[in-house]
Amino acid sequence: MPSTNLTFQNRAEHRAWLATQAALPAGFRVGTTRFDFTPCEAPKPAKMTLTLIALEKPTADFAAMFTRNAFPGAPVIVGRARLGEPALGAIIVNNKISNVCAPGGVEASERVCAETARLLGLVPRAVLPCSTGVIGWTLPVEAMVAALPAAAAALSAGSVLPAAEGIVTTDLYPKVRRATVGPGSIVGIAKGAGMIEPNLATMLVYLFTDLAVPRDTLRAMLVRAVGPSFNSISIDSDTSTSDTVVLVSSGRVPCAGLAEFEAALTQVCRDLAEDVVRNGEGVRHVIRVAVTGAPTAELARALGKAVVNAPLFKCAVAGNDPNVGRLVQAVGKHVGAHAPGTDLSRLRATMGGIEIFSGGVFRLDPAKESALVAHLRGAELYPSAPPKDGVFSAAVDFPPHERCVEIGLDLGVGSGAATVLGGDLTHEYVSENADYRS
Amino acid sequence: MPSTNLTFQNRAEHRAWLATQAALPAGFRVGTTRFDFTPCEAPKPAKMTLTLIALEKPTADFAAMFTRNAFPGAPVIVGRARLGEPALGAIIVNNKISNVCAPGGVEASERVCAETARLLGLVPRAVLPCSTGVIGWTLPVEAMVAALPAAAAALSAGSVLPAAEGIVTTDLYPKVRRATVGPGSIVGIAKGAGMIEPNLATMLVYLFTDLAVPRDTLRAMLVRAVGPSFNSISIDSDTSTSDTVVLVSSGRVPCAGLAEFEAALTQVCRDLAEDVVRNGEGVRHVIRVAVTGAPTAELARALGKAVVNAPLFKCAVAGNDPNVGRLVQAVGKHVGAHAPGTDLSRLRATMGGIEIFSGGVFRLDPAKESALVAHLRGAELYPSAPPKDGVFSAAVDFPPHERCVEIGLDLGVGSGAATVLGGDLTHEYVSENADYRS
Repeated sequence: MPSTNLTFQNRAEHRAWLATQAALPAGFRVGTTRFDFTPCEAPKPAKMTLTLIALEKPTADFAAMFTRNAFPGAPVIVGRARLGEPALGAIIVNNKISNVCAPGGVEASERVCAETARLLGLVPRAVLPCSTGVIGWTLPVEAMVAALPAAAAALSAGSVLPAAEGIVTTDLYPKVRRATVGPGSIVGIAKGAGMIEPNLATMLVYLFTDLAVPRDTLRAMLVRAVGPSFNSISIDSDTSTSDTVVLVSSGRVPCAGLAEFEAALTQVCRDLAEDVVRNGEGVRHVIRVAVTGAPTAELARALGKAVVNAPLFKCAVAGNDPNVGRLVQAVGKHVGAHAPGTDLSRLRATMGGIEIFSGGVFRLDPAKESALVAHLRGAELYPSAPPKDGVFSAAVDFPPHERCVEIGLDLGVGSGAATVLGGDLTHEYVSENADYRS
Repeated sequence: MPSTNLTFQNRAEHRAWLATQAALPAGFRVGTTRFDFTPCEAPKPAKMTLTLIALEKPTADFAAMFTRNAFPGAPVIVGRARLGEPALGAIIVNNKISNVCAPGGVEASERVCAETARLLGLVPRAVLPCSTGVIGWTLPVEAMVAALPAAAAALSAGSVLPAAEGIVTTDLYPKVRRATVGPGSIVGIAKGAGMIEPNLATMLVYLFTDLAVPRDTLRAMLVRAVGPSFNSISIDSDTSTSDTVVLVSSGRVPCAGLAEFEAALTQVCRDLAEDVVRNGEGVRHVIRVAVTGAPTAELARALGKAVVNAPLFKCAVAGNDPNVGRLVQAVGKHVGAHAPGTDLSRLRATMGGIEIFSGGVFRLDPAKESALVAHLRGAELYPSAPPKDGVFSAAVDFPPHERCVEIGLDLGVGSGAATVLGGDLTHEYVSENADYRS
């Protein structure tokens, strides 16, 4: 699934590689600024970063997909309306507060858009707003408006990295992926570490290209690219109220082959999706479940999700414990509750390529147990270290490798297939989320 | 929902109360034995307890419900067949290994039943087998057969407590609840702490009564009693492969009022269900979600489940952090994915009786924030203490109180209602499950 097999020894090595990915396609500029403010619901000092993405010339060729959460954030409500506008000229993103169901939320988003438009000489409806962070709090609109000129002044055409860094919240490191298509390129950045089980869209993801692809084609391609990438991952089964994927073309470079463009787009989405999981909150093992032989692709994906969302299996993986009984439990839970009657008699399950279940029974012995433990240890991103104060935190701020705990589930009854990525459930996840707002 | 409002200062107080609940109804005896063995899949020493429950006279009046997991354990397969038998004379339960999809699993269960029957002078099909513990391992049949005579020799009519203690695995304390109906009684015991989101049946639960209620009536009542009790809880969204609820009448006491009997049965089931959640793996806060005004009772229950299964909300509760944005996220996630079109415009949400959301927006301020923190702290069972070795464990082996984090969700559009219980997501849960088999 990944297009790379990277390893990094430290943050500096990772940063150097990110720099090789980060050149902005022609026609885009990014700028950020960071400022202090006090949230009115919980008055203590906080920091917000504004990330401004501007096109040198507004474009009709843009696509966006949004969360299916029934309580979408105000920027998602505004963003859906923007899809009907003739052109997009800029995107303004804030972190820290997601502006979801906050009193006056839509008006706040529109005010930020209007000020952004004024600074850039655009109409307000040419600006797409995005917010991520705490749900329920209100945006500090005046402080944001005051900070906007600094973001505009910082606009630069060199690298996407400031934007990749600006949009993060609990992410440990920025996520940038690129693909070249002839003389043009696609560059994507993503933010997201928790509340990640996208449903038809995801997190905050921005994909920029200088290749000229018309609006309708872009939109259809984005729908197809999101399926096997962002819609095939889950960190914690929670679906953000702010998930947004945006794809924008500056149209500077003629696109010779649409098929090649779509393949590159899909690969960038898949790589970013895997980056998001690998940097998921508390994730110490990435779990990749390849489901084959299912009656349908939908069931294949649902079974993969059932495995990566099963808390007991996730905990076992965290402990390098090949408790494969919990894996089969998760499959049976989903089928029993949602797909009764599915033929599981030919299920063959593997972990790290080792057969653990076939013909209706487990195939376990002490030698396999040892090999499974070795596979789990080999996929660990970093070992968990008991901290003195009980608050566990990640030991790395870069991705040390791209190995996964490899699960295979072949139902042997059809041609439905899907690959789903998820993470383990760790002390680091609990520490991050039992104390995130404090 | 609970019929009691108990508090305990220590294990001895709790034990003394359990003793007041534990008198066996007429016609039942229980006996246990504990022995050492070596699992063949992971050869290191282990201990197993056999719990034998015997009727003085086989009865036609029994009911049982089983897991809907598509990979049921061998005892569940055998148990389903037992429902067609004319009489039940004994139940034999082992912990430590659940006998799920193990080679020769059904034969192993039947062998244990046959030996039990031989000792008690029954036909083998009058014995119901139950197993709980690690999934995938094989039962140590010969060691079990060798231990059975000791369990039979221990049979006693006094107290159900030995059985309540015998069936546990990771439970911190035994669970016993009783109700009296005229001159008779219903006494129930439950085992279960993890892999708990029952689907039409649950965990291991045994309900004994001396009241004479016919088989068909018992079975219909059990289906109805399980809905608002065991089917309305979730500790970790995982559905055990071994869930079993058994209700047996010895028929010794005439039952004057079936309605009174059913009410008592339902209350015992509800109390046991709450006990199971309160003793859930790593649970430091019990979360009770009362959903009202929903279009249907099914949606009400599903929304309650969505809240108690949302990892981010569960973590916030663990940290005494009233991050109610995550609560509303969970509602929106479920509706967006599974019930699109549901009218949420009148949703009113409360925590601890305090309104936090209405009219489409959050209703938060610093004073409410403080009150919400106080509510969360008041419902904490024990504070989490960072251990020196990083392995968190429960600080109590008794239930200190029966308070809950009280969540109210009124959709304001219909008459569907449900109350669902769940727990928080803690370091204690991760410690328990990242290292359970080791």
